[in-house]
Amino acid sequence: MDEANYSDGDINTRLVEIADKLTVALDHLIPPANGPEAGLMRAMRHAALANGKRMRPFFVLEAGRLFQADETPLLRAASALECVHTYSLIHDDLPCMDNDDFRRGQPTVHKAFNEATAVLAGDALMTLSFSILADKKTHQDAYIRLKLIDRIAEASGAKGMIGGQMIDMLGAEHVRDLNTITRMHRLKTGALISCALDMGAIIGGASDQEHQALAGFANDLGLAYQITDDLLDATGEADEVGKATGKDEKAGKANFVTLLGIDGARQRVRLLAAQAQQHLAIFQDRAKILSKSVDYILARRH
Amino acid sequence: MDEANYSDGDINTRLVEIADKLTVALDHLIPPANGPEAGLMRAMRHAALANGKRMRPFFVLEAGRLFQADETPLLRAASALECVHTYSLIHDDLPCMDNDDFRRGQPTVHKAFNEATAVLAGDALMTLSFSILADKKTHQDAYIRLKLIDRIAEASGAKGMIGGQMIDMLGAEHVRDLNTITRMHRLKTGALISCALDMGAIIGGASDQEHQALAGFANDLGLAYQITDDLLDATGEADEVGKATGKDEKAGKANFVTLLGIDGARQRVRLLAAQAQQHLAIFQDRAKILSKSVDYILARRH
Repeated sequence: MDEANYSDGDINTRLVEIADKLTVALDHLIPPANGPEAGLMRAMRHAALANGKRMRPFFVLEAGRLFQADETPLLRAASALECVHTYSLIHDDLPCMDNDDFRRGQPTVHKAFNEATAVLAGDALMTLSFSILADKKTHQDAYIRLKLIDRIAEASGAKGMIGGQMIDMLGAEHVRDLNTITRMHRLKTGALISCALDMGAIIGGASDQEHQALAGFANDLGLAYQITDDLLDATGEADEVGKATGKDEKAGKANFVTLLGIDGARQRVRLLAAQAQQHLAIFQDRAKILSKSVDYILARRH
Repeated sequence: MDEANYSDGDINTRLVEIADKLTVALDHLIPPANGPEAGLMRAMRHAALANGKRMRPFFVLEAGRLFQADETPLLRAASALECVHTYSLIHDDLPCMDNDDFRRGQPTVHKAFNEATAVLAGDALMTLSFSILADKKTHQDAYIRLKLIDRIAEASGAKGMIGGQMIDMLGAEHVRDLNTITRMHRLKTGALISCALDMGAIIGGASDQEHQALAGFANDLGLAYQITDDLLDATGEADEVGKATGKDEKAGKANFVTLLGIDGARQRVRLLAAQAQQHLAIFQDRAKILSKSVDYILARRH
């Protein structure tokens, strides 16, 4: 489709298009289920090829499009990032963590297979992510491949996503103030969203100013997303939210709504959404789809 | 110490020297235990700084020495590899896997902390491994850094170490024949030992022939090591072996001794040890310490 139509395009269409491409790419990248260890690859496929929104890949591809970057490196970087996201879901769902039985409309890996397989499938998906990025098929420029590896390791490591999950595991009594809650979310989900936009920008050869604009966008959007989640938990009907509501209140967990109040939280979301949009101003019309994604993400449950 | 003395040196001295350097390096590389997520870093340190033999780092450094490679890149590569080895021990010790309470003379991470922390500390150590390798401090040449990343991801991934652990988890009834058992060990422990030697060779700028010689050495040594382990389990006294013996027989598990017999297994070890030494012939006297490591490893329980 031509660029003008595309920029005005429907975000749902674009999300589905990217999700489809991602699933095809991951199907090629995950090793075939051969040998006595075949169950491992089946578990990796179960988790990675399931029907996900693929928001992080969307951000990689849309950030790259701002700079007219080629789609092949973007898709491979997005696949690597989705491997990391998927591994984190598998491990977070384990009985010793969040103990979830369902994910993306199907049993979690430890339910469909067993716990040992879930630990190993998560480990293998993380490892695969770095294999993908180190491969010269991802980008001809070795420095770009190394930057992508460094960026994803930083975003997903002890001072990124894993650190955020660690804070979440401390329990309600340790996570009570706005600073700690903000840090938890910034690390647990924000770091990988920032990484997604940054990977697109790295592949696109962005300037420092452009990197910073996308980092600001990611930061505000990530936080607004989490506050919206807390608002849905506090005010939504279970039917419309798609999962049990009032969970945090019942568990005695502090969150943005318990700390800011419903009105305060709503105001914060509006402020962050406006700020997120403003960060995109330097990209002008090229960022239309990214800009639309703010409203899409904050008006959840599609 | 000068080169001539060194080559004739005592392998125990060299192992202790390398182990000490590794512990110092890892202490610097693991992030400090700050912030609400500090428990994560404490768990990473608990596992990674514990008293290990550091055989894989030994192989990285000794392979690199064959080519007079600088010690700094070798130590960083060895640290990255030890992070991967340590993460695999943390995850393998989990209750859903081998359910071990002690490791390296201290409680395992899930006993000293908890299961969630053990999963996350393992994940974070793997991630750290790739951060270390992507950093230009590891080697000035970007292609070498990428080769190291690619090699470690391959060796530790679904078609390497993790695949081997997956086979081990299938249980005794699925692992009965020599082919499957050999594959399991080749992946589970052999892949990382090969990787260690190869990382040293990559940093040292080895020729294809030299890479192949070290791969042959690693393959034979890894297998001989495992058969020795099975012999100890079958014939050793618990006191002298340092752990319960006869475990495989009691569990109805097939291993090299149940399949080859004690004499057959001993003969196989001698053959593999001789082959391993022969692979080193092209390096002449430079490989004296590596050559000594064969006897050291096969005469266990020091």
